[in-house]
Amino acid sequence: MTATLSSSRLSAAPRPPIPTLERPLSPAALEETLRSFSGAYYVEHPFHQLMYAGRLSPRQFQGWVANRLAYQRVVPRKDAAILSNCPDPVVRREWIQRIVDHDGTEPGTGGIELWIRLGVSLGVPREEMEDERHVLPAARLICESYVTFCRTKPWVEAVASSLTELFAPRIHQQRIEAFPKHYPWIPPEALDYFKSRLVQAPRDVRHGLAIVQRHCTTVDTQRGAFQALAFKLEMLWALIDTIHHAYAE
Amino acid sequence: MTATLSSSRLSAAPRPPIPTLERPLSPAALEETLRSFSGAYYVEHPFHQLMYAGRLSPRQFQGWVANRLAYQRVVPRKDAAILSNCPDPVVRREWIQRIVDHDGTEPGTGGIELWIRLGVSLGVPREEMEDERHVLPAARLICESYVTFCRTKPWVEAVASSLTELFAPRIHQQRIEAFPKHYPWIPPEALDYFKSRLVQAPRDVRHGLAIVQRHCTTVDTQRGAFQALAFKLEMLWALIDTIHHAYAE
Repeated sequence: MTATLSSSRLSAAPRPPIPTLERPLSPAALEETLRSFSGAYYVEHPFHQLMYAGRLSPRQFQGWVANRLAYQRVVPRKDAAILSNCPDPVVRREWIQRIVDHDGTEPGTGGIELWIRLGVSLGVPREEMEDERHVLPAARLICESYVTFCRTKPWVEAVASSLTELFAPRIHQQRIEAFPKHYPWIPPEALDYFKSRLVQAPRDVRHGLAIVQRHCTTVDTQRGAFQALAFKLEMLWALIDTIHHAYAE
Repeated sequence: MTATLSSSRLSAAPRPPIPTLERPLSPAALEETLRSFSGAYYVEHPFHQLMYAGRLSPRQFQGWVANRLAYQRVVPRKDAAILSNCPDPVVRREWIQRIVDHDGTEPGTGGIELWIRLGVSLGVPREEMEDERHVLPAARLICESYVTFCRTKPWVEAVASSLTELFAPRIHQQRIEAFPKHYPWIPPEALDYFKSRLVQAPRDVRHGLAIVQRHCTTVDTQRGAFQALAFKLEMLWALIDTIHHAYAE
């Protein structure tokens, strides 16, 4: 009798529709195909569905916000890895803004700090956010895999992996709507991070998409871009899935 | 009869006086020891001695400036590698300024552009600077080794490798004095890059030194810092030595 593995509680990420290319896509078709991966974005994960339906407990929210800090913290490091691999100063000059957005320009500014404040407003003491005592080893390794991807892959593929930002405005908007509606215990300033990303993410995605369209003009490079976006979608899915099962009630 | 290799025209870099540590040095003694490596700085290389004695031909100057662009171009990439490996946003927020200094904030600004202008003012057409047709393969690989060092070593060692800046003000000042004195064919704007570094380098070196003093408080980490600075001194020596022999007259 053969055992099957169908009973795992860790759910497989939905596979995005990676096309079989016979010839290169036009820039417009390339964008359309990348956008068609949206169904594999982790906004559809059961944990997010619970979040938007108002069914997360404070403990689940706190587990989520403390673990997601690990992701916020790798973002400037993966962006610096892209800078380090990119030979074009024109691209670097624009890409560097992402690092500034996350690290800020002085103490108390930037996206990482805003995320820590989100954690505090959800009831995790600042000290417990900053020392990462609640971050699951699996969550840390999953986030680190994103830095490794950006450090070791061609920089244009690393740029393509950032294009999950294509799908981010929806997730930020959902949070801005769902938090006040379903969670009266969450103070309004908890939304500051998501509001800042509503401004930054569309600008970032235009730049990233233009780079991919300009550099990925062959079957091989377009396949590389699709695989890179698929990697990132799977990474984000694995992260939320890890959090989901760690704090299941 | 045994052949010896003493006849190589490529000269070995002078070895800096790396101490044998039995216990950790104080921060002040650490700085003093790092500064004592100055004799291995490439300011002492025969090519630089020819430069400051007014004995370089325009062709030698042009070979130098075209090849040294490869070094200028790896600097922001090695600094981004340090950012990518550094977990401390406070350090990153200050270190990122080095990338901005080299890449500039818009077209026509930054240290790489100033170096290209230096090349043009020394008689190398802009196109020939930018397409790197004169860059020797050895020079390119030597420069790339610096990025690899910063990408693969602990970030504090990569910071320590930047401390050749301790010795740089002397080299910049020598150029600012020697160029107008010995080379009337070189226009005054050729000095812009060196003047900009006279401002930036002391600021950079204070920051880098403070990081090394704060983080290298054990025998092992202090040895790492010494080895890192020795690596960088050797790398710079190898670069100028390659240029020297390629354009010898």
